[in-house]
Amino acid sequence: MNNRFGTLYTLTSFGESHGKALGGVIDGMPAGVAIDESALQRFVARRRPGQSAVSTARNEADEVELLSGIYQGKTLGTSIGFIVRNTDHRSDDYDEMARCYRPSHADYTYEAKYGLRDPRGGGRASARETVARMVAGGLAMQLLNSLGVKIVAYTSQVGTVTLDEEYHALDLSLVDSNIVRCPDEHAAQQMIEAIATARQQGDTLGGVVTCVAQGVPAGLGEPVAGKLHAMLGAAMLSINAAKSFDMGCGRKFAAMRGSQANDTFVWRDGAVQTTTNHSGGIQGGISNGEDIWFEVAFKPVATLMRDITTIDRDGNTVTLKAKGRHDPCVVPRAVPIVEAMTAMTLLDHYLMNRIAVW
Amino acid sequence: MNNRFGTLYTLTSFGESHGKALGGVIDGMPAGVAIDESALQRFVARRRPGQSAVSTARNEADEVELLSGIYQGKTLGTSIGFIVRNTDHRSDDYDEMARCYRPSHADYTYEAKYGLRDPRGGGRASARETVARMVAGGLAMQLLNSLGVKIVAYTSQVGTVTLDEEYHALDLSLVDSNIVRCPDEHAAQQMIEAIATARQQGDTLGGVVTCVAQGVPAGLGEPVAGKLHAMLGAAMLSINAAKSFDMGCGRKFAAMRGSQANDTFVWRDGAVQTTTNHSGGIQGGISNGEDIWFEVAFKPVATLMRDITTIDRDGNTVTLKAKGRHDPCVVPRAVPIVEAMTAMTLLDHYLMNRIAVW
Amino acid sequence: MNNRFGTLYTLTSFGESHGKALGGVIDGMPAGVAIDESALQRFVARRRPGQSAVSTARNEADEVELLSGIYQGKTLGTSIGFIVRNTDHRSDDYDEMARCYRPSHADYTYEAKYGLRDPRGGGRASARETVARMVAGGLAMQLLNSLGVKIVAYTSQVGTVTLDEEYHALDLSLVDSNIVRCPDEHAAQQMIEAIATARQQGDTLGGVVTCVAQGVPAGLGEPVAGKLHAMLGAAMLSINAAKSFDMGCGRKFAAMRGSQANDTFVWRDGAVQTTTNHSGGIQGGISNGEDIWFEVAFKPVATLMRDITTIDRDGNTVTLKAKGRHDPCVVPRAVPIVEAMTAMTLLDHYLMNRIAVW
Amino acid sequence: MNNRFGTLYTLTSFGESHGKALGGVIDGMPAGVAIDESALQRFVARRRPGQSAVSTARNEADEVELLSGIYQGKTLGTSIGFIVRNTDHRSDDYDEMARCYRPSHADYTYEAKYGLRDPRGGGRASARETVARMVAGGLAMQLLNSLGVKIVAYTSQVGTVTLDEEYHALDLSLVDSNIVRCPDEHAAQQMIEAIATARQQGDTLGGVVTCVAQGVPAGLGEPVAGKLHAMLGAAMLSINAAKSFDMGCGRKFAAMRGSQANDTFVWRDGAVQTTTNHSGGIQGGISNGEDIWFEVAFKPVATLMRDITTIDRDGNTVTLKAKGRHDPCVVPRAVPIVEAMTAMTLLDHYLMNRIAVW
Repeated sequence: MNNRFGTLYTLTSFGESHGKALGGVIDGMPAGVAIDESALQRFVARRRPGQSAVSTARNEADEVELLSGIYQGKTLGTSIGFIVRNTDHRSDDYDEMARCYRPSHADYTYEAKYGLRDPRGGGRASARETVARMVAGGLAMQLLNSLGVKIVAYTSQVGTVTLDEEYHALDLSLVDSNIVRCPDEHAAQQMIEAIATARQQGDTLGGVVTCVAQGVPAGLGEPVAGKLHAMLGAAMLSINAAKSFDMGCGRKFAAMRGSQANDTFVWRDGAVQTTTNHSGGIQGGISNGEDIWFEVAFKPVATLMRDITTIDRDGNTVTLKAKGRHDPCVVPRAVPIVEAMTAMTLLDHYLMNRIAVW
Repeated sequence: MNNRFGTLYTLTSFGESHGKALGGVIDGMPAGVAIDESALQRFVARRRPGQSAVSTARNEADEVELLSGIYQGKTLGTSIGFIVRNTDHRSDDYDEMARCYRPSHADYTYEAKYGLRDPRGGGRASARETVARMVAGGLAMQLLNSLGVKIVAYTSQVGTVTLDEEYHALDLSLVDSNIVRCPDEHAAQQMIEAIATARQQGDTLGGVVTCVAQGVPAGLGEPVAGKLHAMLGAAMLSINAAKSFDMGCGRKFAAMRGSQANDTFVWRDGAVQTTTNHSGGIQGGISNGEDIWFEVAFKPVATLMRDITTIDRDGNTVTLKAKGRHDPCVVPRAVPIVEAMTAMTLLDHYLMNRIAVW
Repeated sequence: MNNRFGTLYTLTSFGESHGKALGGVIDGMPAGVAIDESALQRFVARRRPGQSAVSTARNEADEVELLSGIYQGKTLGTSIGFIVRNTDHRSDDYDEMARCYRPSHADYTYEAKYGLRDPRGGGRASARETVARMVAGGLAMQLLNSLGVKIVAYTSQVGTVTLDEEYHALDLSLVDSNIVRCPDEHAAQQMIEAIATARQQGDTLGGVVTCVAQGVPAGLGEPVAGKLHAMLGAAMLSINAAKSFDMGCGRKFAAMRGSQANDTFVWRDGAVQTTTNHSGGIQGGISNGEDIWFEVAFKPVATLMRDITTIDRDGNTVTLKAKGRHDPCVVPRAVPIVEAMTAMTLLDHYLMNRIAVW
Repeated sequence: MNNRFGTLYTLTSFGESHGKALGGVIDGMPAGVAIDESALQRFVARRRPGQSAVSTARNEADEVELLSGIYQGKTLGTSIGFIVRNTDHRSDDYDEMARCYRPSHADYTYEAKYGLRDPRGGGRASARETVARMVAGGLAMQLLNSLGVKIVAYTSQVGTVTLDEEYHALDLSLVDSNIVRCPDEHAAQQMIEAIATARQQGDTLGGVVTCVAQGVPAGLGEPVAGKLHAMLGAAMLSINAAKSFDMGCGRKFAAMRGSQANDTFVWRDGAVQTTTNHSGGIQGGISNGEDIWFEVAFKPVATLMRDITTIDRDGNTVTLKAKGRHDPCVVPRAVPIVEAMTAMTLLDHYLMNRIAVW
């Protein structure tokens, strides 16, 4: 169970990395929303493998086939089914791995849980699964954009290369101007070099994605279990390789004093605003109308392009020769996934908020 | 909506800080589990206000009244209802605040969402709500303990005082030996002093709680949306004032290389184990049998014991005189709440895992 | 699990018949709804035992204590917790039954499922559980009434005494004018006599409740799994002793021809209407603006006031002497429960419908 | 929302009648279950249009493409995605109907709800949607069969032709031996004639399906909201054109006395059994180990093969010439759908029951 995201705007997804297709069903998209299918296709393509020198050589068109729920360019209010066919799978790359547990992969844990697994390309544990999230997130994004909400994520750290400016000091329109998706050209070049060096060494890098949602009104979020940042956190931590979530100042709050940390309210431009935004736009689990911002850290890719010593299911020590095609750093491709998950989560809360008051 | 935690082991809670009572319904506790009600009461008391010099002076017995679902010391398999009466509420402390928005509190966001709010003690936004979680978590803990699972959380940072040792270098039996719940006596004293100083200055501190779950078998967790660490993250981030979640090495992964970060598998003691545990016991969203460990950062308490400038609902600037009774640092009282949320989440996944394989 | 009703307007209930209390948590009531607590109390009292000669002699005040979610007469948008204390329980009446399986009761099935049970008064299987539904339904009813929706149920059959008129030929304001809740005084008298006769013989009777909801707009209901009549059916069949559900003409449709069964559309009073209403106000699972009407049959009470031969858990044949206090016919007390479940279901769909269209 | 069936074994389906494809995602099928894909295909084909003289002339192969979740003949424990392409859609048949509301169809209610609709073949309201249920039900059936559960449904009434024998007096292996799926050959012939006559007259017939599940152990079902017969009722009433549900003796209970209605327990063959089975195998919402049996009535098909007077969306009276291809009686094709929904519901409860006891 539990291939389902969301409460009111839901995605139930399916698909193994090297199976026939991935896809899903989106339930809860309201009727009457205009959908631009080619814009959706472009959004999904931002996650696509094979798009640049910093990503895997696996080449998938990732063409989305929308099968229902949209008629004459508008949503019907019914469920939206879609599939993305797999084309470039070379399953023989994985034959050796069927009996072995790759370090820090899900091979062992899936087998411990289910007693069997599809070893081809990581099966359901592959990040290829996120293509379905791009579709559901991309559709949510189209509706949110029409409401004036703008969601932008970007790479703020790759390995030890960090971007020092905060988001409001950056030109977020530049995110896609380079292959690491860092809006600061100088830092971007350093990141690209760091990835190239790691790849050359058969090694991999982690990093951080920062995400900003602007134009979200006050009032989104639920008070207890469904706090907006708890739902954003769950959404982000569900992305493959994500290992931490910081809401606004996040962990930095631990060393701050209340007198520094608090965001003072002021009345400005006819609205309640805050002078600072350490909270990241959410207080008590509910949006306060300021920019929503948070950070997600990703671990380095587990698959190294070098020989690895591990064990097989019988406990024998084995050496795995590097095969398959993998990203040396997932962070650039994670950027649009973070945006997609943010869009899904925010739309879900827009819907929940519609029924909060009679 | 959304006062409900969990998928199979669920808590649906209710209660405003200064209403008649808080409580909840636990649904999904299996039948036949032996329950020790006085042990439960002791567990809940660890969160209780008024227990020490580092916590609020509000004095609540927090006596749990279990109303159903348990008969002759065993669970019936039916829902478990419970209430905790409020006794020491001085609502007049809050009269002035009814029209004002305290900085970094939920006053404004609740009003923006619902159009009205219960201003007494923060209403539903008060951390008093977590008493219900202690009950559901405490019952889950009793079952988990009987299965050999041990969950311990502790304070690892208060303000700028940090505990440098990792959890396995600490004697976790000492957590409750001091009022900040830090198992290192030296660091504990520094933390106590830091809190005393901040309180004296009318200021507040944040901090970090580290949590370890030992004895969890491999196989807990779900592959996609219900990844175990995503559910733990959501559970932790739903605790009042929690602002970040780090799974295992968490954000530190961003600066690591794959060759450093990976946890190598070995066959030891007749079982699959890892030589390191950067992952924190979870890979691909599913437990691998190693210790599960993570960290949660809490922001400093928003209510300062000093005059505060803010605005009221009409946009007028107002000065709030400090009133009410508040913790200068929530971290020590957050420790058992983190344990409770961990227990609820793990039991939920134990149940999910029971139906993963036919 | 599964003590929860509803999707967006939810009741999670608890309580054994002879435990300390019954109660529940209502989640999803929107903020800002005016609540009349004494009207609620009167609504709940309609289900109360001991109210007349045709019901059990057990005497329970069924006083509802609302614990949260309402402030100064209005809902806060937070969860509404409530309890109803049990007072008149004579558990010694049930001591003999603890080892025996009463025919057509849930004694055996609970024990088969859970391995243990609370034998006192049927535990969770007792119809006393429905008191929580009266609270959640009563609150829903207050909101629905303010929207112009009127829900009335009545007894249309007791044993072999049937009411021949359809609902629109009856004066529904007379439902509570007699103790069997039948709006036709002549039929009511016959029903009362039939119950008296059966009681005298130590026997019990079943019957039928008809329910009508007027003023429901077109558009409530969901297309596939959440069809409005499927949800109404599930709600009704979850009431203790309910054994059938007929939507509109229900089973009578089986013998009709399409040309008789179809409800012809006409344009009348500026609106789409139908000339007949065999469908019962729902087409394709969605309300069409006509009156919603349906029927629910209840089996005769299983507990007879005569000696009963059955078996105990060891398979021994035993004779149970009649004890306890039971209704000779539950139908009159089921009438307000049917109304309550209808109100909960309709409010749930009102909320779902709010997010059906952007 | 609400294209999802089930709690633990779930189907989230999609697809409009004349869109590209129908399909769904099955979540919650345990790992390790052997699947026979060609047997599944045969099961699905039993619902297929165009299979006999009593069904529509629309000809769809209804070939199921399973896309994930099964590997080397066994379920992986991951979600199972599938699609069924539409091939024989003649959408021009429906052009005239786009502005009109066919009587007792969902045209008007969908438009009232969503503001727009896909008029081609009834869109999502078409019974073609049930093909997805056949897939999810068929997979569930394979697992249930391996557990010794046998589910058989059959036509027990068509129009005024009724089958007088109860299920245990029939040879249920004969269900598919005739095109109306009635195991009594004599009654079957009368039903076939009745349908032929109605069709000739441009009219349609309703009927009743009886369903029996044998081999279900005691203990399936949940005590309050999730009563087994309430869930079966909801599942059946969600089938297009279903209008009533009778559990066991169902509505007949209303006229029975308790002394007649009760099923007496006896100890037989080393087990608790009952001498009669009026309850239909469920007591207190939980199965008691006896055969589960119930009946579902279907209204006559709304689309008549004759000219129909109705209104368009502007309120004008219009005459619809009969077009499209429709069943004169849906009951024979509803038989396997009833079986499929029963299988889904029972498997769901098997899974729930696995976590009822620790």
